[in-house]
Amino acid sequence: MNSESDNSNPLVAIIMGSSSDWETMRHASLILTELAVPHECRIVSAHRTPDFLFEYVGSAQSRGIHVLIAGAGGAAHLPGMAAAKTILPVLGVPVRSRALQGFDSLLSIVQMPKGIPVATHAIGEDGAVNAALQAAAILAVSDHGIGQRLKAYYDQRHTPALEKLI
Amino acid sequence: MNSESDNSNPLVAIIMGSSSDWETMRHASLILTELAVPHECRIVSAHRTPDFLFEYVGSAQSRGIHVLIAGAGGAAHLPGMAAAKTILPVLGVPVRSRALQGFDSLLSIVQMPKGIPVATHAIGEDGAVNAALQAAAILAVSDHGIGQRLKAYYDQRHTPALEKLI
Amino acid sequence: MNSESDNSNPLVAIIMGSSSDWETMRHASLILTELAVPHECRIVSAHRTPDFLFEYVGSAQSRGIHVLIAGAGGAAHLPGMAAAKTILPVLGVPVRSRALQGFDSLLSIVQMPKGIPVATHAIGEDGAVNAALQAAAILAVSDHGIGQRLKAYYDQRHTPALEKLI
Amino acid sequence: MNSESDNSNPLVAIIMGSSSDWETMRHASLILTELAVPHECRIVSAHRTPDFLFEYVGSAQSRGIHVLIAGAGGAAHLPGMAAAKTILPVLGVPVRSRALQGFDSLLSIVQMPKGIPVATHAIGEDGAVNAALQAAAILAVSDHGIGQRLKAYYDQRHTPALEKLI
Amino acid sequence: MNSESDNSNPLVAIIMGSSSDWETMRHASLILTELAVPHECRIVSAHRTPDFLFEYVGSAQSRGIHVLIAGAGGAAHLPGMAAAKTILPVLGVPVRSRALQGFDSLLSIVQMPKGIPVATHAIGEDGAVNAALQAAAILAVSDHGIGQRLKAYYDQRHTPALEKLI
Amino acid sequence: MNSESDNSNPLVAIIMGSSSDWETMRHASLILTELAVPHECRIVSAHRTPDFLFEYVGSAQSRGIHVLIAGAGGAAHLPGMAAAKTILPVLGVPVRSRALQGFDSLLSIVQMPKGIPVATHAIGEDGAVNAALQAAAILAVSDHGIGQRLKAYYDQRHTPALEKLI
Amino acid sequence: MNSESDNSNPLVAIIMGSSSDWETMRHASLILTELAVPHECRIVSAHRTPDFLFEYVGSAQSRGIHVLIAGAGGAAHLPGMAAAKTILPVLGVPVRSRALQGFDSLLSIVQMPKGIPVATHAIGEDGAVNAALQAAAILAVSDHGIGQRLKAYYDQRHTPALEKLI
Amino acid sequence: MNSESDNSNPLVAIIMGSSSDWETMRHASLILTELAVPHECRIVSAHRTPDFLFEYVGSAQSRGIHVLIAGAGGAAHLPGMAAAKTILPVLGVPVRSRALQGFDSLLSIVQMPKGIPVATHAIGEDGAVNAALQAAAILAVSDHGIGQRLKAYYDQRHTPALEKLI
Repeated sequence: MNSESDNSNPLVAIIMGSSSDWETMRHASLILTELAVPHECRIVSAHRTPDFLFEYVGSAQSRGIHVLIAGAGGAAHLPGMAAAKTILPVLGVPVRSRALQGFDSLLSIVQMPKGIPVATHAIGEDGAVNAALQAAAILAVSDHGIGQRLKAYYDQRHTPALEKLI
Repeated sequence: MNSESDNSNPLVAIIMGSSSDWETMRHASLILTELAVPHECRIVSAHRTPDFLFEYVGSAQSRGIHVLIAGAGGAAHLPGMAAAKTILPVLGVPVRSRALQGFDSLLSIVQMPKGIPVATHAIGEDGAVNAALQAAAILAVSDHGIGQRLKAYYDQRHTPALEKLI
Repeated sequence: MNSESDNSNPLVAIIMGSSSDWETMRHASLILTELAVPHECRIVSAHRTPDFLFEYVGSAQSRGIHVLIAGAGGAAHLPGMAAAKTILPVLGVPVRSRALQGFDSLLSIVQMPKGIPVATHAIGEDGAVNAALQAAAILAVSDHGIGQRLKAYYDQRHTPALEKLI
Repeated sequence: MNSESDNSNPLVAIIMGSSSDWETMRHASLILTELAVPHECRIVSAHRTPDFLFEYVGSAQSRGIHVLIAGAGGAAHLPGMAAAKTILPVLGVPVRSRALQGFDSLLSIVQMPKGIPVATHAIGEDGAVNAALQAAAILAVSDHGIGQRLKAYYDQRHTPALEKLI
Repeated sequence: MNSESDNSNPLVAIIMGSSSDWETMRHASLILTELAVPHECRIVSAHRTPDFLFEYVGSAQSRGIHVLIAGAGGAAHLPGMAAAKTILPVLGVPVRSRALQGFDSLLSIVQMPKGIPVATHAIGEDGAVNAALQAAAILAVSDHGIGQRLKAYYDQRHTPALEKLI
Repeated sequence: MNSESDNSNPLVAIIMGSSSDWETMRHASLILTELAVPHECRIVSAHRTPDFLFEYVGSAQSRGIHVLIAGAGGAAHLPGMAAAKTILPVLGVPVRSRALQGFDSLLSIVQMPKGIPVATHAIGEDGAVNAALQAAAILAVSDHGIGQRLKAYYDQRHTPALEKLI
Repeated sequence: MNSESDNSNPLVAIIMGSSSDWETMRHASLILTELAVPHECRIVSAHRTPDFLFEYVGSAQSRGIHVLIAGAGGAAHLPGMAAAKTILPVLGVPVRSRALQGFDSLLSIVQMPKGIPVATHAIGEDGAVNAALQAAAILAVSDHGIGQRLKAYYDQRHTPALEKLI
Repeated sequence: MNSESDNSNPLVAIIMGSSSDWETMRHASLILTELAVPHECRIVSAHRTPDFLFEYVGSAQSRGIHVLIAGAGGAAHLPGMAAAKTILPVLGVPVRSRALQGFDSLLSIVQMPKGIPVATHAIGEDGAVNAALQAAAILAVSDHGIGQRLKAYYDQRHTPALEKLI
């Protein structure tokens, strides 16, 4: 598999509440592509298409999906409702909202009740990148190739900064 | 109908995420009983029983329910998911949570995206009482009897406080 | 009634504290117009014209108004004071404020004391849209035509997003 | 006038939304009594008795009241609505609320729109004491006796702490 | 005295922590000028010129100042330190700060300990306008002319909005 | 493996900053024991024993650990520093702090910069339970037995609540 | 110097706004005593004894004080005003307040304007301990004995926790 | 040493998590240069280069560094982890973050647990300036020259503002 990853048998599903979340969530897709992790990206709204959400998430495991990444803003119910319909790991990304800057999105995603875990990441693009890296880390538990590519990704970025600023 | 209201044909459904929410939500029931508004109270969890929630809310209108009151705490998805499955008015009550005092519940309920309205009330018991009063007000738009009982309720409580404290 | 709704016998009143709130609240009017719900829009300030507010709200029911939508920002007293003067359902919309982004408006509207319900919606334009949709849902309890138009509105918007993003 | 101040011609009115606010607001009364400032204390609710509020505040100046102190909690509208009905100085005291600790009360009182001033003090008992001291300071602008008693009050409390703790 | 108020014997002093606060605080000066209330405006920093602050505030009463308006941002100590040095009424205006939008300024001004009152107004320009209106209201307790001009100011602004928006 | 799980070859490591965090984090251990997931629990402080943290986390993968759960309070650096030293999935649990109720813990854990993912769960015991459930879900990606036990755990808890409250 | 440190020539001054702060600030004194750092503890209020504060802080350097630790709650002005009157390092400790849990104290201390540094520590007892440790660290820059005792203090506490919890 | 300070034997180290923090932290460097305090500036990431951080901070004292200034944003772990590896005074600067404006950075830096002090300054550029001034103040405890230059710096800026604004 090369950097043009073959997404025909996706292991990760990236879902988001509306097309306006794509600007944030595409950063998750870019990381997965860089790590050659097959994935798919869908608009699935907990509020506007609840039945489709249940059907989509409910059948994800049988379709071969191993990890779900869900991004949403405001009263962000998508990650939590996905977690209610699958035992797959669900990673949540709070999308930055207009009035409250994603602070509402964060609390709506992270403060899940006992029994329905959603692994929450930082607000916005940084969280989308990190959710993708963690999805790869989860797959790497049993997929050696992804583990090697993930390790290479980190090694490349985490070299000491040798230059002095002044 | 007397103060022992006959709840066999409920007009209002009070739902809540867990039995621990009853301590808060029973105040909504008390008000509806006082106003002789037939209602039912159910534990329906967005996270633990999502399919039952969809079935319950989806069939509410055809069962004669006119208004839904939904209470939940933390990442409170119940009111919003109910609103996603019905065109009936949904009134949300943020239940006080342990760590963040219901502040998370409030934002998770009120910051709904455009298109899926949840009418949010104050955190805790005060909100439960007010949701019940508003449910009655909604029914009173077309039910003269409820309107009269609601007016009497207000008249009784809103008399000027004539005594001076000192 | 067509999309150029006849507003001569309004069922809904949209009020707001100042003309600067119109940019937000006009989205409520647009939705009501789309649903052919007769309504009127007025500037009514709790602070600058308190007597007019009391007179306006106090006579709303007798003028045929069934639902009030009130938008205000900062220490937003308009929705709560309207609720103090009528038993009609009052829906509140927190308008985004300059310094605190509408967070002050939200708390000033939603944290009503026991006995005076204000159904609060999201901060800003999203809340204005949702308040209008809920006003329609309230009217739909007894107005079959509005109920049908509301259902059509939702059906049109909530079709599953079939396309995959990548 | 001695410390048993004669309150028959009150200069200051202390009003509050409900009898539960008295535990906080009585500290304002104690200070005014100590400074021998004639005052009265009343329960006047913006929400439950709005007409009485307008009548009470609207006639305050003609009855000889010079300063209003208003305490309220939650979506605290009392101080702001008082300010809307008088040109007398209105001092606001946010009463501590259950869920949000008076944070909602504070924002609902202090974030008044341009044109309707409410002089806000700290949340709770400290704010009640300070509102009373400021009411005295306002009266002291033209009442030499109150000015002298206020100065004596401060002199007595603000002596340097000479002892060392260790 | 005309609208070009004679400020040679100021009754109100407007002080602020730095020249960058003038953009906010000049709105207080504009109102006082409109109401023909003699006043002066000074940069007086609690942090950079603490001795000058003490001297300036300590002598304000003897120079004929009746009310102090103090604006500051961030860890805003100016209003509180002014209040510590005078028994004159001190009105505080939280200036909007860069990172926390004046939320820090607000808490630093309003949460004064028992015994040192600072009458706090809204964050930013609105608070500056309101502090000036309240300074006039305080003076109006004993100055009939200012009272009349203040009443005229309000009457002019608070006429009912008769036009309907749609 | 029975409910007295054999922890000699742990797959999950639960670490926490201090022994006072055990009251929260032991709920993660209880869940893993119930699911028969071998695990170990250690006090490892980012601040007091930073070298031991690096050594412990750095060697976790080679010792057979597949998932790390890290709980910490206040300026909670443990989860983030663990994530900096391993490519294993790190799940963070904000422990409730005294002054700020775990709100500081939450932000210190969830707002990780791009490149170092920490999967954050709810504040307190609920988050500890959910982190354990997600650790099991991660292992279940490749361990069928854990997947079956996790499914059984959910099935048992998520049966519809059939009884009506009233 | 032994653990009964001789405080006759204090190097550190611990000041606080009121005697109620002693419960928090005594933890700073305990640490300094344990490290045998001569220090004094005084009640010095920015608000009630501002002149004494200026005199006390203004003469601190000439009396041999090298570091000031200032604790205060609410609109906590003491640390900032101390910093305005000395070039000595000033360490601030936000004391937990009743309504806002020290969140107001924290912002009032840490958000100092450019030019007047206050080194702020955590809310409450933890911050008092840390301010004392940092005062010792500052003295250790030039006092080898304090440096050795500080190092011994850390060595003793920061040994790896070898025991496993389960 | 002149204003072109010789930085070959730095007394202060300014470190920051990423190059994007330099826009904020360079203001600390400018102040130290103005005060002729030798210093160095480095990118040292707690998350991306943890081993280098430990090595760099662990050897700082032996290389002659007396004070560390650490700036970071979001879940800002750099100052706290530096403090975990040295007994030198560590000054923290919360860098303004995108979504939460540095509020997350502030709490992640200031709420350190008992035993690991980080002296926290204001969010952003103001905090960077103040950290530099306090570093100078710490050095001035034993370096008379720096003390004199620091005093001159303050004297120059803190002259009373004599001009009246109007």
